[in-house]
Amino acid sequence: MKNIGILGSTGSIGTQALDIISESSMEYSVEYITADSNIDLLFKQIEIYNPKKIHINNYSSYLIAKESLNKNIDILHTKDELKSLIQTSNTDIVLNSIVGTAGLEPTIWTIESGIDLALSNKESLVVAGEYINELLLKSKSSLIPVDSEHSAILQCIQGEKMDNISKIILTGSGGPFRTMDIADFKYINLEDALKHPNWSMGNKITIDSATMMNKGLEVIEAFWLFNIDINQIDIVVHPQSIIHSMVEFVDGSVKAQLGLPDMKIPINYALNFPFHTPIKSENLNLPLIGELTFEEPNLIKFKCIDLAYKALKSGGSYLPVLNIANDIVVASFLKKKINFIDIPNYIENAMESHPYVAHPKLDDIYNLIDWTNKHFSNINKEVFSDVN
Amino acid sequence: MKNIGILGSTGSIGTQALDIISESSMEYSVEYITADSNIDLLFKQIEIYNPKKIHINNYSSYLIAKESLNKNIDILHTKDELKSLIQTSNTDIVLNSIVGTAGLEPTIWTIESGIDLALSNKESLVVAGEYINELLLKSKSSLIPVDSEHSAILQCIQGEKMDNISKIILTGSGGPFRTMDIADFKYINLEDALKHPNWSMGNKITIDSATMMNKGLEVIEAFWLFNIDINQIDIVVHPQSIIHSMVEFVDGSVKAQLGLPDMKIPINYALNFPFHTPIKSENLNLPLIGELTFEEPNLIKFKCIDLAYKALKSGGSYLPVLNIANDIVVASFLKKKINFIDIPNYIENAMESHPYVAHPKLDDIYNLIDWTNKHFSNINKEVFSDVN
Repeated sequence: MKNIGILGSTGSIGTQALDIISESSMEYSVEYITADSNIDLLFKQIEIYNPKKIHINNYSSYLIAKESLNKNIDILHTKDELKSLIQTSNTDIVLNSIVGTAGLEPTIWTIESGIDLALSNKESLVVAGEYINELLLKSKSSLIPVDSEHSAILQCIQGEKMDNISKIILTGSGGPFRTMDIADFKYINLEDALKHPNWSMGNKITIDSATMMNKGLEVIEAFWLFNIDINQIDIVVHPQSIIHSMVEFVDGSVKAQLGLPDMKIPINYALNFPFHTPIKSENLNLPLIGELTFEEPNLIKFKCIDLAYKALKSGGSYLPVLNIANDIVVASFLKKKINFIDIPNYIENAMESHPYVAHPKLDDIYNLIDWTNKHFSNINKEVFSDVN
Repeated sequence: MKNIGILGSTGSIGTQALDIISESSMEYSVEYITADSNIDLLFKQIEIYNPKKIHINNYSSYLIAKESLNKNIDILHTKDELKSLIQTSNTDIVLNSIVGTAGLEPTIWTIESGIDLALSNKESLVVAGEYINELLLKSKSSLIPVDSEHSAILQCIQGEKMDNISKIILTGSGGPFRTMDIADFKYINLEDALKHPNWSMGNKITIDSATMMNKGLEVIEAFWLFNIDINQIDIVVHPQSIIHSMVEFVDGSVKAQLGLPDMKIPINYALNFPFHTPIKSENLNLPLIGELTFEEPNLIKFKCIDLAYKALKSGGSYLPVLNIANDIVVASFLKKKINFIDIPNYIENAMESHPYVAHPKLDDIYNLIDWTNKHFSNINKEVFSDVN
């Protein structure tokens, strides 16, 4: 029996994790689930999974839950209550599937209490990778990535010596605009950008995939997760999303993890690491797929990749500012307030003008969040509203 | 310092193993090398690698070596001397790269003396898999496959539980006749069959690749190496020979090992198992390659695959007879005495008419070698000469 807490249970990763728990032959107990405001789905999940406690971030949703739920269940709302929920519940593993920088503190609280963390919230590592790695050194927590790319790498390095790795090769579909001429990027609208060719994901990540910032953030995530030099992390565009990432060794041998684009595989692997446990999933049939193709990423069309490598090379506060600015700018694009083509320019502008900190601690990161929000508010308060 | 003995040092695998030893930063000492009759190359290898002992199978080549070599080196010839060479030399690992059924006894002698065995001679396992596995249970030898496909699988299962494997997927290029119409198979001549699209290998294995018997023998080899059900071993045709094989797990996740078609990678891996150690090799560049394609094998065109599965299902003596018959028939094709299209028919005929033994021991295998040689001699003594 594995006791699980799920942060962000109504999102794409959270719902798939709960599906796994329903379908699996492994025994799980859902200790708690948390959500922002989607209480219709949250109520359904409560019926099925019977968690002991829930946390609702949105105040009016919380009030509705308080009134309408007559089950014997703890209904929590404040940040302090969330911290206490994570730190005092009897969980073997916490799945952090909160989207955006809001996932950072829950990551830290989980590691501080020595609980294993299945991390879908890549922003935690992008914003505070150095700080989180310091915490992990002092904690008995294991941090297990849920991202399909990092899960692929983790699977490929099982039984291997890290010293024998020469390169990590992150694959990416290239998103919906891979073959579009850069001259046409100015016509891209929100509906186009939300059409991901392979993966069904949340809106924020789907846009990150269209700008390829997602791949840039994954380079940063890989850097902190696998403790590898930036020159040893490559990106290869692979439109079919069948090879989820690869590891090259010092002898020229390459190991890859493959599968149909189904997040249940990496979620289940994170929940049961380091073992592959049975789940309902469609098997990969390569002859049916026929061909896998590969190309170099276009850093001129997908400037966000370049920004991420630049942030990693510059280090320190460039990393949180890259991520925070991306959160704000993508939120604004999702509200149709800015153009797709301007996304990297706004982010670059924030990176270039921010007050640099070499080794940001948590306080520095919160100051940078404030600074970045103010920076965008100063540009245009109507267009950019606070998202963190 | 690793002390190595190389059986079949003048063949394709043997010479590449010696290249690795020259080029590697790891320290090796070549204790002995053995060859059949290529003494020009053997003499060059003696100059470079300075082995303490050599064994020459061909008697006239042995006599020439005895006369012309004035080095302080033991020059051996008889079978007993080969056995003693393997069993009394101070080696950490023996590379058995002898081609054909002749490699069986050296495999057994190595395992009997508890020395680790890098096995390129797949015939050993095909002919006597059950017997060899029994020997391994009583021996401290590790048997490490050198075949690129089995090396790929071995690399993919590092750090994994065998229980969590659902399938082994062997890839094969499909050989030079993959796209040829079956109606044209009757026109195939030796020169066509020796043109392998990707790998540079010995003649016998190149023909096995053209008939796809090679893949069938590898299914059998995988069966004995990885102790997996026959229904869990699949073949996928992959013309580019970049993915060298794959393992599917119970969660639908697939791990694959990739690389340019360069036998130095699996040879080096076998010599240094379970670690990837640096060698000179060209790195895989997937965007440069562009595409990898996959298709189902055609069991009507490549009847040898079907024969191998049938031999494995029938078990016992069907396996050695399949392999021994293939050795004889391919030798005859290499001498241009039979047609390409008749290769599987001759093998099937031997399988169907042989005296069945359920659990062949070594004596049974030698009886089956005799039986199969006589069987073909009875068909046509001119066409089929003894090869074992």
